[in-house]
Amino acid sequence: MTFKTKDENIAAVLYGAHDLRVEKRPIPQPQAGEVLLRIKATGICGSDLHYYLDGGLGPRRIDSSKPMILGHESAGIVVSIGDDTTKLKVGDRVVIEPGRSCGVCSYCCQGRYNLCPKMKFSSSLLQGPNDGSLCRYACFPENLCHRLPDNMSFDDGALIEPLAVALHSVERTPIKVGSTVHVFGAGPVGLLTAAVAFVKGAVNCTIFDINQDRLDFAKKYLPNGVRVVLLPKIKFQNAEDTITWAQDNAIHFLRDLSNDDSDNFADVVFECTGVAECIMLSMYVVQRGGTVMLIGLGRDKTLMPTDIITTREVDIRGNFRYANVHKKAITLVEQGRINLSSLVSHRFKLENSNILACLPLPLSNADFLAV
Amino acid sequence: MTFKTKDENIAAVLYGAHDLRVEKRPIPQPQAGEVLLRIKATGICGSDLHYYLDGGLGPRRIDSSKPMILGHESAGIVVSIGDDTTKLKVGDRVVIEPGRSCGVCSYCCQGRYNLCPKMKFSSSLLQGPNDGSLCRYACFPENLCHRLPDNMSFDDGALIEPLAVALHSVERTPIKVGSTVHVFGAGPVGLLTAAVAFVKGAVNCTIFDINQDRLDFAKKYLPNGVRVVLLPKIKFQNAEDTITWAQDNAIHFLRDLSNDDSDNFADVVFECTGVAECIMLSMYVVQRGGTVMLIGLGRDKTLMPTDIITTREVDIRGNFRYANVHKKAITLVEQGRINLSSLVSHRFKLENSNILACLPLPLSNADFLAV
Amino acid sequence: MTFKTKDENIAAVLYGAHDLRVEKRPIPQPQAGEVLLRIKATGICGSDLHYYLDGGLGPRRIDSSKPMILGHESAGIVVSIGDDTTKLKVGDRVVIEPGRSCGVCSYCCQGRYNLCPKMKFSSSLLQGPNDGSLCRYACFPENLCHRLPDNMSFDDGALIEPLAVALHSVERTPIKVGSTVHVFGAGPVGLLTAAVAFVKGAVNCTIFDINQDRLDFAKKYLPNGVRVVLLPKIKFQNAEDTITWAQDNAIHFLRDLSNDDSDNFADVVFECTGVAECIMLSMYVVQRGGTVMLIGLGRDKTLMPTDIITTREVDIRGNFRYANVHKKAITLVEQGRINLSSLVSHRFKLENSNILACLPLPLSNADFLAV
Amino acid sequence: MTFKTKDENIAAVLYGAHDLRVEKRPIPQPQAGEVLLRIKATGICGSDLHYYLDGGLGPRRIDSSKPMILGHESAGIVVSIGDDTTKLKVGDRVVIEPGRSCGVCSYCCQGRYNLCPKMKFSSSLLQGPNDGSLCRYACFPENLCHRLPDNMSFDDGALIEPLAVALHSVERTPIKVGSTVHVFGAGPVGLLTAAVAFVKGAVNCTIFDINQDRLDFAKKYLPNGVRVVLLPKIKFQNAEDTITWAQDNAIHFLRDLSNDDSDNFADVVFECTGVAECIMLSMYVVQRGGTVMLIGLGRDKTLMPTDIITTREVDIRGNFRYANVHKKAITLVEQGRINLSSLVSHRFKLENSNILACLPLPLSNADFLAV
Repeated sequence: MTFKTKDENIAAVLYGAHDLRVEKRPIPQPQAGEVLLRIKATGICGSDLHYYLDGGLGPRRIDSSKPMILGHESAGIVVSIGDDTTKLKVGDRVVIEPGRSCGVCSYCCQGRYNLCPKMKFSSSLLQGPNDGSLCRYACFPENLCHRLPDNMSFDDGALIEPLAVALHSVERTPIKVGSTVHVFGAGPVGLLTAAVAFVKGAVNCTIFDINQDRLDFAKKYLPNGVRVVLLPKIKFQNAEDTITWAQDNAIHFLRDLSNDDSDNFADVVFECTGVAECIMLSMYVVQRGGTVMLIGLGRDKTLMPTDIITTREVDIRGNFRYANVHKKAITLVEQGRINLSSLVSHRFKLENSNILACLPLPLSNADFLAV
Repeated sequence: MTFKTKDENIAAVLYGAHDLRVEKRPIPQPQAGEVLLRIKATGICGSDLHYYLDGGLGPRRIDSSKPMILGHESAGIVVSIGDDTTKLKVGDRVVIEPGRSCGVCSYCCQGRYNLCPKMKFSSSLLQGPNDGSLCRYACFPENLCHRLPDNMSFDDGALIEPLAVALHSVERTPIKVGSTVHVFGAGPVGLLTAAVAFVKGAVNCTIFDINQDRLDFAKKYLPNGVRVVLLPKIKFQNAEDTITWAQDNAIHFLRDLSNDDSDNFADVVFECTGVAECIMLSMYVVQRGGTVMLIGLGRDKTLMPTDIITTREVDIRGNFRYANVHKKAITLVEQGRINLSSLVSHRFKLENSNILACLPLPLSNADFLAV
Repeated sequence: MTFKTKDENIAAVLYGAHDLRVEKRPIPQPQAGEVLLRIKATGICGSDLHYYLDGGLGPRRIDSSKPMILGHESAGIVVSIGDDTTKLKVGDRVVIEPGRSCGVCSYCCQGRYNLCPKMKFSSSLLQGPNDGSLCRYACFPENLCHRLPDNMSFDDGALIEPLAVALHSVERTPIKVGSTVHVFGAGPVGLLTAAVAFVKGAVNCTIFDINQDRLDFAKKYLPNGVRVVLLPKIKFQNAEDTITWAQDNAIHFLRDLSNDDSDNFADVVFECTGVAECIMLSMYVVQRGGTVMLIGLGRDKTLMPTDIITTREVDIRGNFRYANVHKKAITLVEQGRINLSSLVSHRFKLENSNILACLPLPLSNADFLAV
Repeated sequence: MTFKTKDENIAAVLYGAHDLRVEKRPIPQPQAGEVLLRIKATGICGSDLHYYLDGGLGPRRIDSSKPMILGHESAGIVVSIGDDTTKLKVGDRVVIEPGRSCGVCSYCCQGRYNLCPKMKFSSSLLQGPNDGSLCRYACFPENLCHRLPDNMSFDDGALIEPLAVALHSVERTPIKVGSTVHVFGAGPVGLLTAAVAFVKGAVNCTIFDINQDRLDFAKKYLPNGVRVVLLPKIKFQNAEDTITWAQDNAIHFLRDLSNDDSDNFADVVFECTGVAECIMLSMYVVQRGGTVMLIGLGRDKTLMPTDIITTREVDIRGNFRYANVHKKAITLVEQGRINLSSLVSHRFKLENSNILACLPLPLSNADFLAV
């Protein structure tokens, strides 16, 4: 099928730290099994900002001779289809699932494709650089494009990606109907995790943050009955101090929450900050036999109370992106169980992507959208 | 029922650090639901030794005005039964499960009675002091006394307790038939954990230790095909050094194990040393999506690589004692699937319990038995 | 503690089929660990009605020389406490969990006390007759009395029991957030099961019944978006006809539900009727790898499509009462996640319990309450 | 790469019931991602025999204008590789996993590719006809060819397929170390299931059959301690008679097995016959809360005791082929945990494949091999 369009493809391309260039690019041709999308909205992930600010993530740095298009939280419309596509047609509105796994390794075959060592993830240097979708036109495999229902906007579609993270992490815990859940961090992922935990039947939810504005937003955004707790801004050099503080404050916060302390220990804690003090505190507000799910990425090593992990049989789990949750995430929004659009705080034109220079870190209570 | 015996009750009673006294005690009367046992063999647990050496465990210290009988790894013979007992009769040979849980809290009702906050565990100060079974006569609830099959000795019976720890910890991991398993520490619990993992179908088992004698014993004790790896004796002050060492050695050890590195990453690692370096190494020899089970008790806090836990979705679990495994543990020995008797390294008379003063720490590749 | 009351104890006592007598009974004295309750509301379970109509349930029939008080869905107020009680005090409002398990068998120790072979369940002949709580005063073990929050009525409290059945059955299935769920039967248990499944994140819920009135009530009672489907009243003598009908109608019903058939196969089906045709239909509306949970009790044997169970790996599970869910069930109502009071269709005085003679079978869309 | 061979390709091609023709066929060329194999051994599955005898399986019949090569239990040697292959090279010995799933449906993405609705399974008419591997040369996707270790024969390799069925079915049950397991049917799958259950730690294993010769073989083949029980050859027309017989004999068989009845109820029953009487008996020899795994394929509908399923919370699960178990199955044989070669009862040349006409049904205690 031939494809004609009046508009050009432009892309926000990262060449190095603080070196993001909006460039014209040719419109790509879909390969077999792929579709070409006109991207309509792209959320800005914390990782995009880190790439922008640091020129890389973790130990890897971008090579200016191999620049990379940023962005992976996108929704768009199918404008062309490649050979061997069977499900989508021109005009379909879709959400992108931005990771191309190998499909044949043991992780892929067992349904944990997010752990595929050969994963090519959009706007990531690992196994790349892999161009992302902060652009007007991009090709994706048909089976990674999920239909966007009519009652959902492209903004909603772009925000499915962080919702997928939250959904995957909640499903990796043993939350039951009636479980008590605590969430550390009221940023986008923390809010969505709390919201999904509520949809899964959690009760007595509490969300902790050091920022009152975020908590005010959380109070509005989350269902009635979710409690918010302001944490002091502290940072300990000393491990002993961290532990003492965590022990004392666990007792303090739990007592504050109700008259009956015991009910306030969490069955599951979601740690969405990556901050050492919050990780430590998590271990003291979870009950025996409970689970602490680590989602936030902070320092690459953290002190953990091994005595708690063993003598209380507390499980520590980690979360990495998502697998097999996009369709379910879309349905939750379609059916009104989760609201995404109110999370959008800023909108800007793709042409103005270097606005990234102005975004504050950490990201506030919402995602930013390029449209 | 009146009970007569020629021999007296003597007990090894701890009054403080290095103050263990062998004393005469009256023979207790079984209460309703209890049986009186003539103890025939008692293993010496690492915790008994710590109590002896330090006068306590963790933050608690014994009060010499409330001395405590040591010992909780025991087997004996029923010599008297209390009211309301229905299963046991005089002459029955039994293994003791030494923890009396409350039976009505949420942990007990959910089958995780090892986490019961009111647990009275033999030879423990928590909720106590609770007299143990390093004595000739002791009463126990009938339902905590499990029948010892005819083909098992009292020595076997005493060693069911550490086997129960191993069995509980193995069952708390997702080992499958054909899983690759690594074990750190070739002491009694490490050996039994490796043995149980093998019975559960683990393959490519490797056991690590810093002591060649232990590894030689492990090689004899464990099934053919279990590999042993000698670790260097090192201790890092610096977290970075620990991590660098762990990363390097993980690659080194795994490469040594076979030509194909990838097969040697473990599905499940059992950490039975509690040593920081081994905990760190565990995280680097486990594969993506795998599980590290912490059994060994060492320092109360340890540095963990949170980046591994999150980006590889490695689960960290802890183990505390056991629940609902004694009957299964006994059957394993009865049917010849696990050998216990060869783990006994020393035997001494109960009267000579102060021999504890001479025992080396850490305990070598076997348990000590008071008979 | 002495206890005085002006009112007498009366009880609805079953002597045989259609022979229910309202009798004066002495007010019982709480034993150690028990409390005496003034019962304030009792729901009438289908089993109570079957006992009344048939003089028994299953193969067992009541012996008129050992009559039995009916009723087990009750809430009341503590009016006296026995020795060794530690949590409750006079005046506390509570919900009864009406099964006394042995506490020491393998099922109890593993947290599945609902399967305890020695279970003494209120208003059941098994291990009895065990007097129930369709009376003014009854004693219960303290640990089977769960606090009723201030914002819940005694009516709510009485209906916690059927909610506990629904909650236990939902938790025994692998429902995830976003799962598609179908429910057969819009009686009290079917409605509550659908409601709990929704609270656990189920979407695309459909409830089937042969009675339009029940479906109309379901439409009002259940959250927006739950679909109702009227089934024809049919009864096949012939197994082949049942299967053909089920196959045809599965296709028919699923096609009716939306344009895209595939989305309508259920991840989990709850069968709450016990009717052979519905059980068969369940197997054809569940997707590959899905689960059919059998809750309804009908005939003691039913034809199942073993080819579906094997070649599609459909799991069949059964549900029997509940374990460890009462506190969570109460919290759901306390926090407004589940509504119970609107399920009450009739109220009558305990003195008029022989009104049971007038109740229609099957029970309509609600429970009946004696107050 | 060009490929030369002296020998021709011949294949056992099914044209209809009792119409199997050994034909010359061109040697196929491997497509991208495929390898060409010289097949060295192929086991004869019960389904192959059914295809031969009935000209089809279930409702489907072969069309003589689209004949199909039989066979799917094969091992061979790589003689040529297609483009884009990365792991295998000419000369590698491999085991075939004979099902090509679509790789992108929800079942494939979740690791349950055995349930893929588009599965093209060798020697199956579904989504076919799909030529099998009862031939000299066949192409397979590289990622479905698993390396055969040096210490395993091609015979062993061919028998990995039924072992994979057994392994998959065992892993789909909650067997623990020390679980009691009963197996109905001492044919190849029953024997392998019992053997794998033993490797997973099952104890008190019992295997039932109506054929004493099979049981004698089972006694030799299975580990010491596995008991065998001869069932009477009966067939009931009447459901009530089946149930009565099952109830009576469950008690009878369990009593025979030991003095203490209770220990003989199974935690897990594997039903490998598909016979109605055995399915019913399974339900009465499994304990409360236990699992009955249906593996045997018999009639497409069977009477089940729904009262047992509900009031005892017995789970019924089904098994269909396998997913993600071939490498583990191979390792079990490589490490001597499972013996396969002694299961081979007959060997014949591929040229003589019409020997199938002479094979008795049901298959005896072993598989037949074409070499």
